[in-house]
Amino acid sequence: MKKILILGATGSIGRQTLEIIDANPLDFKLIGVSGFNNTSLLIEIIQKYELSIASVKDSIQAEKIKKINPNIKILIGEQGLIDFAGFNPEEDITLINALVGMVGLKPTLRAIGINRNVLLANKETLVVGGHLIKEALKKSSSNLYPIDSEHSAIWQLLNGENKSSVKRLIITASGGSFRDKARTELEDVSLESALNHPNWSMGSKITIDSATMINKGFEIIEAVYLFDLGIDKVEAILHQESLIHSFVEFEDGSITAQIAEHDMRLPIHYAMYYPERKESIAYKLDFMKLNNLHFKKIDFNRYPCLSYAIEAYKIGGSMRTVLNAANEIAVRLFIEKKIKFLDIERIIKEEMEHHQVITFPSLEEIYTIDSEIKTRIYNQY
Amino acid sequence: MKKILILGATGSIGRQTLEIIDANPLDFKLIGVSGFNNTSLLIEIIQKYELSIASVKDSIQAEKIKKINPNIKILIGEQGLIDFAGFNPEEDITLINALVGMVGLKPTLRAIGINRNVLLANKETLVVGGHLIKEALKKSSSNLYPIDSEHSAIWQLLNGENKSSVKRLIITASGGSFRDKARTELEDVSLESALNHPNWSMGSKITIDSATMINKGFEIIEAVYLFDLGIDKVEAILHQESLIHSFVEFEDGSITAQIAEHDMRLPIHYAMYYPERKESIAYKLDFMKLNNLHFKKIDFNRYPCLSYAIEAYKIGGSMRTVLNAANEIAVRLFIEKKIKFLDIERIIKEEMEHHQVITFPSLEEIYTIDSEIKTRIYNQY
Repeated sequence: MKKILILGATGSIGRQTLEIIDANPLDFKLIGVSGFNNTSLLIEIIQKYELSIASVKDSIQAEKIKKINPNIKILIGEQGLIDFAGFNPEEDITLINALVGMVGLKPTLRAIGINRNVLLANKETLVVGGHLIKEALKKSSSNLYPIDSEHSAIWQLLNGENKSSVKRLIITASGGSFRDKARTELEDVSLESALNHPNWSMGSKITIDSATMINKGFEIIEAVYLFDLGIDKVEAILHQESLIHSFVEFEDGSITAQIAEHDMRLPIHYAMYYPERKESIAYKLDFMKLNNLHFKKIDFNRYPCLSYAIEAYKIGGSMRTVLNAANEIAVRLFIEKKIKFLDIERIIKEEMEHHQVITFPSLEEIYTIDSEIKTRIYNQY
Repeated sequence: MKKILILGATGSIGRQTLEIIDANPLDFKLIGVSGFNNTSLLIEIIQKYELSIASVKDSIQAEKIKKINPNIKILIGEQGLIDFAGFNPEEDITLINALVGMVGLKPTLRAIGINRNVLLANKETLVVGGHLIKEALKKSSSNLYPIDSEHSAIWQLLNGENKSSVKRLIITASGGSFRDKARTELEDVSLESALNHPNWSMGSKITIDSATMINKGFEIIEAVYLFDLGIDKVEAILHQESLIHSFVEFEDGSITAQIAEHDMRLPIHYAMYYPERKESIAYKLDFMKLNNLHFKKIDFNRYPCLSYAIEAYKIGGSMRTVLNAANEIAVRLFIEKKIKFLDIERIIKEEMEHHQVITFPSLEEIYTIDSEIKTRIYNQY
C-alpha cells in the first residue's frame, strides 16, 4: 500500500491519478491533495477519501473546508504547497506533483530534501530548476519519475539498457492545434481554435504550449535532466497520431519505440507502480491503428518557440527562467485575450534578447527574475 | 576478444557473420568454420582467417583442403559437425549455429553440454528439440542467444523487464513471396516465383518456409522456448515492410517495438556483442520510412502451415519432429520441382494426421522418426 499526496488534484493529471487510485484501492491510499481553482471538486475529494491534509489557495477556501471537515489540516497559498510536499517527513509517502507553472519547483525540492519519491508532471521543475534538482538529488535518496507520455516511453525503453549505448532519444510531437496551418495563417487565430487540440483534452496552458511547440522544447530539456544525456542527443519528430510516444536509437542502429493509445492514465499508472507492471485502466491499443502512421521532420522556422527553448537550455542558467516566465505570462495574456497568438513567441524572443544571464542562479534569484518578468510584461498589456 | 566457431559459414547468415568479424578484428577471432556446399568459398575462408579447424561434407572436400593447408584439423559429415561444436572444450569459445535443418540440433546440444554459449540461427534446434535443449540448459552454464530479427527484437525489448508482466509477444511476418496472391492463385505457382522474396535474399529453404508461413510457426515455437512463455502468449501479425521486427505488449497495456532496416547483420551483431551495444555495420533506418507502415491480421485459412506448426507444438513431443521432417522433405521436393507448392502443406497435414505421438522423445527417437519420414516421402516422388 503506497501512501500518496497529490499536488494539483483537481487538474487533468490529478483527476486521472484519482481514477487509478479508485481502481486500485488495495495498492494506494490517498493522504492529501492540493487544489486552487475548483473548490467544489476539492471538497468532494476531501470527503470521499477522508483526507488528513489539504492545501488551498486562500483563507476563504480554507474556511469553507473547515466548516465541512473541522479535523483536516489545511495549508494555504504557495508556502502551503511547499509544506504540503514536506508533510509528515518521516512517513514513506509518494508525492505526485501535477502543478502547472513555476509554483511546482519549490515543492519538488522540498520533497527531495526529505528523501521523498516524486512523480513529476510539473514541467517547470526541470525546465527552470533542473540544475537545482540535479544537485538536490545527489544529496538525497529520492527517485524522480516522470509522468508524461514521452518521458514515460523513454524511461520504459531504457529499462535494462546502458545509457552509454544510447545514440539519440526521439520525442514525438503531435504538432498541436495549428499543425495544419502555415505560419502566414497564424496571425489572427483565435483562443478557441488554439484550445482545440486535435488529439486530446488537457489544461489550457499546456494546450497553448503544444500549439507553439514550446512544450516539446520543455520536454527536450526535461529529457536531458531525467536521462542525463547531452541535448544534442535529444530530438523531436512530428507524429500526428500520437500513438508512438518516443523512440530510442542505440549505437548499434537498433531503434525501440513505446506505443499506446494516448491516455495519460498509462504513464501515471506506470510511474505509480514502477518497477512493477500491473493491469491498468488505460485504453488498450487496437493494432490496426498502426496502419498509416505519419512522421515528419520539424521545421524550426514554423515553430520558433522550439528553437528558443533549445537555445535557452544551451545558454543555461537564468535564461531558462526567462524562457519559462515570458512564456507563462504570455500564454496567460493570450488566454485573457489581451494579446495575439504570435505575440507569445515575440514576447519570449524579446525577453531572451534583453536578459543578462546568471550562470548558476539560486532558487531565490530564479523567483526574483520570474516575478520581475511576469509583473513587468503583464502590466504592459 | 571473443573466439568464434561458425557452423554454416558459407550460407547467408555465416557470410554476414564474417562481415561483422572483418569489421571488428579486435573484438572477434575466428577459430573454425563448417561448410558443406560451397567448397571454393570454404577454402577462401580457411586461408583468409588461418583457421585451426574446419568441418566439411565428405573426404573429397577434406582432401582438397588438406592439400592447401596441411596443418588444419578437418572433421567430416554430420558427426563432424557435432565434434566441431565441441572443439577444444576447455576453451572459452562462442558457437554460432547457422546450419539449416535437423542437422543443427545435435551440435547445439554438444555445445550446451560443455557449457559453451550458442548463438542460434538454426530453427530446428528449438522447433524439434526444444524440450531436450531446455533440459540441457538446466544442467549447463551456457547461454542460448537468438540470431533472428524477430527474436532479437523481443530479446532487446525484454531487457530489464519482468517476464511475468508480459501479456503477449507479437512477431511480425512479411507474408512471403505470395502475400499478394489469394489461395486460389497458389495452385500452379512456380519455384522461381516462390524464391523471389519481396523483402530480402535468403537461402532457398527459408524463403519457401516464408512463403508457406510455416517459418512464422517455427518462430512462435522458438519464442516459447527462448522466452519461456506459453504459446497462447505468442502471436504473429502481417507487416509487409518488415521494419518493425516484433512487439511486446505488457500487462499494463504498454507496447514496445523494435525497429530497424531489415539487415540480418544487426541481430547477428547484437548477439555477438551482448550485453554490450556497439556501433554496427548494419544499414541505418531512415525514419521517414515509418510513414505508411502496414499491419494485418493473419488469416489462418490462407496460411494453413502456420496452424499446423501451432498444433504440432500443442500436441507436443514427436509431433514437432513430424512437422519439421515433412516440411523439410516437402520443401526439398518442391525445390527439385517434383511436387507443387500446395503439396507442401498437404504432405505436412497427412503426416501429422497419421503419426502416433511419443510424448517425450529421446534424441535417437527424434532422428529415427525424422529419417523414416524423409526417406519414405522422398521415395514416393
